[in-house]
Amino acid sequence: MSHRLFHFVAGESGAWRITDIREIAGAGLATASHLSIHPGAMPDPRPDQAWCLRGITSNERYAERSEKNALLQVQPPLGRGDSTRAVLIPIRKTAAWWLLTQDERRQIFEPQSKHTEIGLRYLPAIARRLHHCRDFGEQEPFDFLTWFEFAPEDQPAFDQLLAALRASMEWNYVEREVEVRVSRAR
Amino acid sequence: MSHRLFHFVAGESGAWRITDIREIAGAGLATASHLSIHPGAMPDPRPDQAWCLRGITSNERYAERSEKNALLQVQPPLGRGDSTRAVLIPIRKTAAWWLLTQDERRQIFEPQSKHTEIGLRYLPAIARRLHHCRDFGEQEPFDFLTWFEFAPEDQPAFDQLLAALRASMEWNYVEREVEVRVSRAR
Repeated sequence: MSHRLFHFVAGESGAWRITDIREIAGAGLATASHLSIHPGAMPDPRPDQAWCLRGITSNERYAERSEKNALLQVQPPLGRGDSTRAVLIPIRKTAAWWLLTQDERRQIFEPQSKHTEIGLRYLPAIARRLHHCRDFGEQEPFDFLTWFEFAPEDQPAFDQLLAALRASMEWNYVEREVEVRVSRAR
Repeated sequence: MSHRLFHFVAGESGAWRITDIREIAGAGLATASHLSIHPGAMPDPRPDQAWCLRGITSNERYAERSEKNALLQVQPPLGRGDSTRAVLIPIRKTAAWWLLTQDERRQIFEPQSKHTEIGLRYLPAIARRLHHCRDFGEQEPFDFLTWFEFAPEDQPAFDQLLAALRASMEWNYVEREVEVRVSRAR
């Protein structure tokens, strides 16, 4: 079965070793040494658990057919052997963003901020999976969790991608953002 | 606090008396005599509970600014004194719908099916609140729950509204639909 729901658990063990947790905007996340990813139902809480974030993959919210086709041609899968670096970026957008109508959000997302166009420049180097969280409930700490995977030599490209997105109009609507940088545990 | 999350519980008591449950497409729902609506966290399961459906209000997915402004001018609130009739309509759309890109879904939703335009014709008679469920998890029975309220004399108008939507292209993508018709309990 192909899962849509994923839990990201930080604690003392896991397939990924946490190398850095950076507070980009708003409150950060507690430190921990390892990160594990659990597809499907929520894993039992562990005594060593520092935090657990959940997200679900969903339908496209902004991509149009031509953009989606361009992405499909170059999007790599997760789990490539040489993708030994990864970054989890939880984000929460402002109330103002969510009050915009669909055409207003699309206008900021692509014509103004070129979100997909920027992302395409870094494919297939950077693999990515977007998870939604806002509609799990009323008290979710984040709206999105994005998981990126790449080879160590693509770290500079990944940092450029982040810088380009953060310089865009869309990021004026980001009120909380954390970077959890990890390396595959041996 | 203004709630986004709502649970609809069918059982032997509740503010609304169930007058009919109609299977429109796919599997129906168990019979019960009453329906209650609980804002916020999930209520404790009751011994008489026949079913419990949950949904969350969210950002607009298709409405553009001009349509939203038109709706805002005539949309009535829920809970009007003479709104003694209501209908809960849980719907699930097909996998094919969710694989469409945003522009493809929008094209079907409004230019082809005139979803908002049809809805506007029945305002302010019919009050409505849309709840999303698809992204709670992998096993949700429905994608949407829509709650409609109106006065008894507007029942024919409501039935016209349903007929117009069900005749639209968009409804080719509906694979499960149930109507739960209720009257305010005395």
